[in-house]
Amino acid sequence: MAKNKKSGKKLVYFFGEGDAKMKDLLGGKGANLNEMTNLGIPVPPGFTITTECCNLYYDLDRKWPEELQTQMDANIAKLEKATGKCFGDKNNTLLVSVRSGAKFSMPGMMDTILNLGLSLESVETISNITKNPRFAWDSYRRFIQMFGSVVMGIGHDHFEEILDSVKHKRKVKLDTDLDHNDLKEVALKYREMIKEVTKKDFPNDPKTQLRMSIDAVFNSWNNERAITYRRLNDIPGDLGTAVNIQAMVFGNMGDDSGTGVAFTRNPSTGENLFYGEYLMNAQGEDVVAGIRTPQKIDNLAKVDKKSYNQLVEIRKKLEKHYKDMQDIEFTIEKGKLYMLQTRNGKRTAAAAIRIAVNMVSEGLIKKDEALLRVDPNSLNQLLHKRIDTKEKLKILGKGLPASPGAAVGEIVFTAERAHDWAEEGKNVILVRTETSPEDIEGMHAAKGILTSRGGMTSHAAVVARGMGKCCVAGCEAAKVNEKEKTLIFGDRTFKEGNIITLNGSTGEVIEGAAKLIDPEMTGEFSILMKWADDTRTLNVRTNADTPHDAKVARGFGAEGIGLCRTEHMFFEGERIKAVREMILSETLDGRKKALAKLMPMQKGDFSGLFKEMKDLPVTIRLLDPPLHEFLPQDPKDIKDLAKEMNVSEKVLKDKIDSLHEFNPMLGHRGCRLGIVYPEITEMQAQAIFEAACELKKKGQDIVPEVMIPLVGDIKEFRNQKDIIVKVAEETIAKYKVQLKYMVGTMIEVPRGALMAGEIAKEAEFFSFGTNDLTQMTLGISRDDAGKFIPKYIELGIYEKDPFAVLDQTGVGQLVQMAAKRGREARKNLKLGICGEHGGDPSSVEFCHRAGLNYVSCSPFRVPIARLAAAHAKIKETVKSTYANK
Amino acid sequence: MAKNKKSGKKLVYFFGEGDAKMKDLLGGKGANLNEMTNLGIPVPPGFTITTECCNLYYDLDRKWPEELQTQMDANIAKLEKATGKCFGDKNNTLLVSVRSGAKFSMPGMMDTILNLGLSLESVETISNITKNPRFAWDSYRRFIQMFGSVVMGIGHDHFEEILDSVKHKRKVKLDTDLDHNDLKEVALKYREMIKEVTKKDFPNDPKTQLRMSIDAVFNSWNNERAITYRRLNDIPGDLGTAVNIQAMVFGNMGDDSGTGVAFTRNPSTGENLFYGEYLMNAQGEDVVAGIRTPQKIDNLAKVDKKSYNQLVEIRKKLEKHYKDMQDIEFTIEKGKLYMLQTRNGKRTAAAAIRIAVNMVSEGLIKKDEALLRVDPNSLNQLLHKRIDTKEKLKILGKGLPASPGAAVGEIVFTAERAHDWAEEGKNVILVRTETSPEDIEGMHAAKGILTSRGGMTSHAAVVARGMGKCCVAGCEAAKVNEKEKTLIFGDRTFKEGNIITLNGSTGEVIEGAAKLIDPEMTGEFSILMKWADDTRTLNVRTNADTPHDAKVARGFGAEGIGLCRTEHMFFEGERIKAVREMILSETLDGRKKALAKLMPMQKGDFSGLFKEMKDLPVTIRLLDPPLHEFLPQDPKDIKDLAKEMNVSEKVLKDKIDSLHEFNPMLGHRGCRLGIVYPEITEMQAQAIFEAACELKKKGQDIVPEVMIPLVGDIKEFRNQKDIIVKVAEETIAKYKVQLKYMVGTMIEVPRGALMAGEIAKEAEFFSFGTNDLTQMTLGISRDDAGKFIPKYIELGIYEKDPFAVLDQTGVGQLVQMAAKRGREARKNLKLGICGEHGGDPSSVEFCHRAGLNYVSCSPFRVPIARLAAAHAKIKETVKSTYANK
Repeated sequence: MAKNKKSGKKLVYFFGEGDAKMKDLLGGKGANLNEMTNLGIPVPPGFTITTECCNLYYDLDRKWPEELQTQMDANIAKLEKATGKCFGDKNNTLLVSVRSGAKFSMPGMMDTILNLGLSLESVETISNITKNPRFAWDSYRRFIQMFGSVVMGIGHDHFEEILDSVKHKRKVKLDTDLDHNDLKEVALKYREMIKEVTKKDFPNDPKTQLRMSIDAVFNSWNNERAITYRRLNDIPGDLGTAVNIQAMVFGNMGDDSGTGVAFTRNPSTGENLFYGEYLMNAQGEDVVAGIRTPQKIDNLAKVDKKSYNQLVEIRKKLEKHYKDMQDIEFTIEKGKLYMLQTRNGKRTAAAAIRIAVNMVSEGLIKKDEALLRVDPNSLNQLLHKRIDTKEKLKILGKGLPASPGAAVGEIVFTAERAHDWAEEGKNVILVRTETSPEDIEGMHAAKGILTSRGGMTSHAAVVARGMGKCCVAGCEAAKVNEKEKTLIFGDRTFKEGNIITLNGSTGEVIEGAAKLIDPEMTGEFSILMKWADDTRTLNVRTNADTPHDAKVARGFGAEGIGLCRTEHMFFEGERIKAVREMILSETLDGRKKALAKLMPMQKGDFSGLFKEMKDLPVTIRLLDPPLHEFLPQDPKDIKDLAKEMNVSEKVLKDKIDSLHEFNPMLGHRGCRLGIVYPEITEMQAQAIFEAACELKKKGQDIVPEVMIPLVGDIKEFRNQKDIIVKVAEETIAKYKVQLKYMVGTMIEVPRGALMAGEIAKEAEFFSFGTNDLTQMTLGISRDDAGKFIPKYIELGIYEKDPFAVLDQTGVGQLVQMAAKRGREARKNLKLGICGEHGGDPSSVEFCHRAGLNYVSCSPFRVPIARLAAAHAKIKETVKSTYANK
Repeated sequence: MAKNKKSGKKLVYFFGEGDAKMKDLLGGKGANLNEMTNLGIPVPPGFTITTECCNLYYDLDRKWPEELQTQMDANIAKLEKATGKCFGDKNNTLLVSVRSGAKFSMPGMMDTILNLGLSLESVETISNITKNPRFAWDSYRRFIQMFGSVVMGIGHDHFEEILDSVKHKRKVKLDTDLDHNDLKEVALKYREMIKEVTKKDFPNDPKTQLRMSIDAVFNSWNNERAITYRRLNDIPGDLGTAVNIQAMVFGNMGDDSGTGVAFTRNPSTGENLFYGEYLMNAQGEDVVAGIRTPQKIDNLAKVDKKSYNQLVEIRKKLEKHYKDMQDIEFTIEKGKLYMLQTRNGKRTAAAAIRIAVNMVSEGLIKKDEALLRVDPNSLNQLLHKRIDTKEKLKILGKGLPASPGAAVGEIVFTAERAHDWAEEGKNVILVRTETSPEDIEGMHAAKGILTSRGGMTSHAAVVARGMGKCCVAGCEAAKVNEKEKTLIFGDRTFKEGNIITLNGSTGEVIEGAAKLIDPEMTGEFSILMKWADDTRTLNVRTNADTPHDAKVARGFGAEGIGLCRTEHMFFEGERIKAVREMILSETLDGRKKALAKLMPMQKGDFSGLFKEMKDLPVTIRLLDPPLHEFLPQDPKDIKDLAKEMNVSEKVLKDKIDSLHEFNPMLGHRGCRLGIVYPEITEMQAQAIFEAACELKKKGQDIVPEVMIPLVGDIKEFRNQKDIIVKVAEETIAKYKVQLKYMVGTMIEVPRGALMAGEIAKEAEFFSFGTNDLTQMTLGISRDDAGKFIPKYIELGIYEKDPFAVLDQTGVGQLVQMAAKRGREARKNLKLGICGEHGGDPSSVEFCHRAGLNYVSCSPFRVPIARLAAAHAKIKETVKSTYANK
């Protein structure tokens, strides 16, 4: 690379020479300070050294480009002029902060050096001016430590040792117990130590301090932690960092000084009221430290009317400019107001909705912008009971926030006990090592579910989310002993009947009964959802297996059922008996006899669902799990079942052994069951079509969508479709009705996606089963992933759990490929998604972009998906608007 | 569709008007009969109705196109003229055969009707001419039955009933015990029955018989079985079938008549000698029926010199024309020779090689053609001991032919016993329900392995093939009780020490000690392999974990090791102790201590391999299986181990439980181990590089290829590569040598293939692990597939077991995609395959087309892969030659 020391470029921008759009060149922080200055808001003056300059520094083997010193000198002169202070003038010294500021916020880089410019001489002057020698010497010893460690690379222990020795001598424990003489001693000893270690004097000259600090910021761009972070996050190494140098202002220079933080609206409720706190004669850290009690912002009007009025004006100006609620910091130095920061303020979901909707009425933003202001995931907070966080809570442990909401109840360890106690009117929490399909009834009966094993997509988590029931899963701190009926956290043992509270939104397990608050559905919430529905083009369906779930989902705005898992219907009461009879039959006749018992029950299930969903579409997936899931594993249960089924224990045991699978996820399940046992498919098809024909006869307009699971080849699909069509046509003929129906498949095996062009020749719809598709594409069993996914996330190998947020770059390729190839083969192919990802906002946006017709998610995530779908549409429109320009 | 009854097309070809190239129009059989006629070889005359005519028939709603009758009449006249016989002339009646003949041979379609033309009158004449009334009436009653069932659709039971009643009346048991009067009675009763069932007379007029037969052939094209077959095999439905009508000739018209079958060379040894059998005054079926003993073909010279000489001429002509050994059928009718069939003859592998090599010397074919003549899979027969099939064998049951060869030995049920008895010099067969890595030592010691569970790629099968050891896997007829040490087949119980024989090439389990024959390596075999090596461009490596395997593979021509599975090294002797110590350590220090014990042993392993392979490349895969595979599952073993490791049984049990996985295939394995426990990767890298550096210092030129398994994302790869490179550089510096090395990955997770473009930025080679890639892409666990894959193959959903033959349309897409994207990112990316498919010929051809550099397979399949690679190259050249024309 050509190393031209003279670049001819503008390397330093005085605040006001740049603006918010120049983030590439000035970094995020620098661009923002420039913007505020441009708005005429009083900001302490300063300047930004560009990211380009940082890159030149590296091109020159860590040397400054020639013109940097010249431009620096000019900007320092400008800064001295603006502040009326002077670098190195001990009577009127200019103090500055030095901060790094890359385009993206990056942990591992140098953060901040405050009070740069302090010297042995100026510290005395400041001591006199502020009449606070303790503050002056404390600032100086902190500056030495900050500069010494960050810029000069001296270990913290060196500083700690000196501080401890002085505290020991004074016989005090806290830093705050040291007076200004002690702190002076500390500062001077720091200087001696630094000289000893580095063989250099601690720099007393401000320009030397500044030069060294700028080098340190540049060097921090390529320290090991920053490189690793960039590498793991795919941030290019050639962006470089900017450096911000800004004049210090002090809120602790007397009673005409002060400092505060405020929000332009109430961040908790969204009310359009100025909201904040301040302290006079204080530093920024005093407001948050809690030693003195800050005042409400309104009171400032009484103390410093001028500054207060100015703040109110700035509040209006910032909201008008940024068109959003702002979180601001200010300092008053001797009656003069300075703004130190403004940024979009964090807020609760309720506040976000209220602010967004109000700002539309106020004419500040458009509806699209209002929709984008609300994070779809945050709606979760509004849709479930939640714990009153004002109360003090005793947290026992923390698991995965598997299904949001909160629940209080007596703990039980078996599904039976859960059921029985619930019948008696008790609130119960079902506690299990992990749940299995046999626990369904108990899960229904419980208020909440706690498991010690399993991930975000474990059986407990998936089923609980489907039921909209609070669940904490995989709480490893909990030791569950189902036999002895104990739940142990550390040295605390809980027994059946003891009361605990679960917070499914945070994963916390709480001792005793916490206070719960009902969800609030404000008027603004429904206004926003109406706007979302008007905007989005993607439909939102729900995953529901029962009329009750279906009803809840319709209440949340679901436009159909995208996935009804028929196997969940197999576990209740008498059914499981017939299912087991079918599995244990060695003959076709035996299986058919058992299936004949199941048929009317399944028919009733479908009839109930169809009735609840009226004329909305209902997709029914045929039996999916391997048959061994319907048989017990526990020796006692096997014994009981053998007795009940009137077979010998050995016969039953042998059957269970013969059904055992090494990798059930990749085993005899899905359409593989229907192919080996076509009579199962026949029975299910008969139940679906008899239910549909009967309702059709009564005048209901229903179009059943029958979904064949786990298809990887068109021949598998044809085999099952032939059976379904045969049963459908016979049933329709028998009932003498006109009934439309569709036969489609789940795309959940990678081969299914690869062969989508072929499969779409026969399949009328695809539903992407992204749970299994993710497992197989990544080669990761979600039930076993707990052993390494946390490590992967810690190391930055995965950004998110791929079972919660769709892996768009990997699995997404297969979804896009299948959508494209499928539509090429069948133009009007209906496309949907029914994995857990259907309720995750970023995944919903992906589905919109991939051209899907709908997403399907658990009932309680329907509003989230509706809003996310609106976001997707708005972002697409913005993008295409840009593309057309 | 326009239904023009007149097509204006030639619908009937008299033999000789067409040729062998017209298979689309004349079907396979018709085209071949035409070809023989053209060659001037005496073929009974006849004609072919075209496939086009069949399609017209369907276009006309199953009616004949107008011109068909006219063209038929003309051809019948021609046929009558050629034979000097006449349809319907009772004194000189023309008898014909009617056969269907589509482009592809298709089960389910009508096959043959013989002796069409027979009437009540002509049967009497024939009876007189042949002086064999029994033959005449038997022919007639067979004709009625054939025609009645195939053309008129009458069930077989109707005919059986009549035949049985006559036999009952005559008090005989066999058809052959009936005389001509009985058969006449049967024939006449058949006619009566047909009239009763169909209300129509059985047609006596030959032209009516012919018309009805042709309709039956056309109709059979669209019967249910044929449609299903075409659908399952993707054969288009609009090809249609041809119909062949040919004059009958009879070898049983007296002592100047006869019939025979012959091969133009010895099909068993390949010797260039005329080889066959004949019988005078006999029908074709008499030769094969075994009632009379056929004569050697040479003897015909004494009986009918003219016909013999003519046959010898035809033998030469056919070989010269077809340039291959022919399987021929002939009939002599009253001293006149007729050829009824010629086709390429089936042969043993040894014969195939000899014939192919000899034909090159004889100038009949080129080397390329000779290579193509030998089926690579057939070489299997030549590389292993085999059972003398001349001996009578008592087959106990049949499992999967998991690893070829044969073995005789005393059965044992544990690896320990196998090892101990083998030490004593006994030959043992290890019998297990299924094997696990703990059995490795026992498998090494045994002569053969028998399992009752598991598929072609089960642990037993894969390991046995790797060892080149005979194995019968998944023999479901065998009940193995390891506790009671019994092996039961039906009512036969075998105990430890009883002798059985395994045939790994057929899957048969044989009682007692069968006679074994050593493999023969003929001179022609090595000539052919030399030609193969000169031709192919694809390299062939081997999968080998020990110096012994590596040596065997080099003997078979392996050009490197494509896959060394380091985990197999972890099971032997002291090693497993250290491995278990590592797994049971709860601290990093503990693990490092255990790994330090393993390091020198691993180093020794690698050193041995490197030495054996000299300067050939060696790819070493880092630890792959989940850790629980190294711990026992059996309560007794757990107890023993707890004692040995000096931990409580509970602690050990808890550890085993905590390592339990629901789907180990998709669990904590592959690079996920090395990421969570980087110390394992460090140890393995150290062992590899210390071994390599030491040999390098001694002057051996070695370039180790380190392979990271189960990578799905570039960040996983980088994490492990960083460790490997760090260890490599440190070791190289320590030894002060120059050592090149490569770091690459296995592509075995579908996401790895999808992200290949990214991964290739860091990876220097890809090896396609198609075993796991198939499992994940198809969503099928090979260990559990036994429950449905047989059904899939039976139903035609799968053509082949996808774990034996690569699924080119599905998994193949991912291989091609990864190869393309990988090479786009890194031009010289080295590509190979190390799954089981590396030894399957069709998969090897696929790998060649996909642009891979090498395939790697088990040692005993190396010659097969070499020949398959040559085939691939030749086919590609032929294809591109055609493309250039």
